[in-house]
Amino acid sequence: MTTLLVLYRRPDGDANGDAVATFERRYRDEHLPLVAQTPGLRATRIWRVEEALGGETELVLACAMDFDDRAALDAGLRSDPMRAAGRLLRDIAPGLATFLVVEDASDLLAGG
Amino acid sequence: MTTLLVLYRRPDGDANGDAVATFERRYRDEHLPLVAQTPGLRATRIWRVEEALGGETELVLACAMDFDDRAALDAGLRSDPMRAAGRLLRDIAPGLATFLVVEDASDLLAGG
Repeated sequence: MTTLLVLYRRPDGDANGDAVATFERRYRDEHLPLVAQTPGLRATRIWRVEEALGGETELVLACAMDFDDRAALDAGLRSDPMRAAGRLLRDIAPGLATFLVVEDASDLLAGG
Repeated sequence: MTTLLVLYRRPDGDANGDAVATFERRYRDEHLPLVAQTPGLRATRIWRVEEALGGETELVLACAMDFDDRAALDAGLRSDPMRAAGRLLRDIAPGLATFLVVEDASDLLAGG
């Protein structure tokens, strides 16, 4: 399985959380409905970042989108819904997202 | 659901990947068997970071450990296996891990 793991940083100067609230609203109402139409998308998990243990973090949200394999992810990324979702992100979270391609590493768990 | 999302950075000066290979081996053989004994741990997912789309990343591995709620996570963190796993990490990945407490945000998907 191949997963697109996206990490979102807090907008600059968002001391009272208004910018995060606006981002969350547009992410929910505009971005995720496009993502949901992506061909080959098997599952989506979304998390709010509450805190970093023993430190600080700029991250406020994370999203894991599962595809069967790298080819399916690449096809999904080229699809119209995902391209529209990406364009929208550049508007609602400019420069705040890191897009990681990650591969299932459950082989590491086999001995556990 | 509350999840401990741990992000691991590449060791410094690891141009040929030897340090990552050593970290992975000790993570698999020593760390994860301890984590598996943590009370209240519901599921574990591990990913290898392949690349960052449109950029670079220092991250090499990520792990998501699910608990029923924050109280269960806190109890797990205080348990002997998790404390031993944490001490071991300071040896095999000193200063390279970020520990994020994240909360399920599937409410954002409801309208999708």
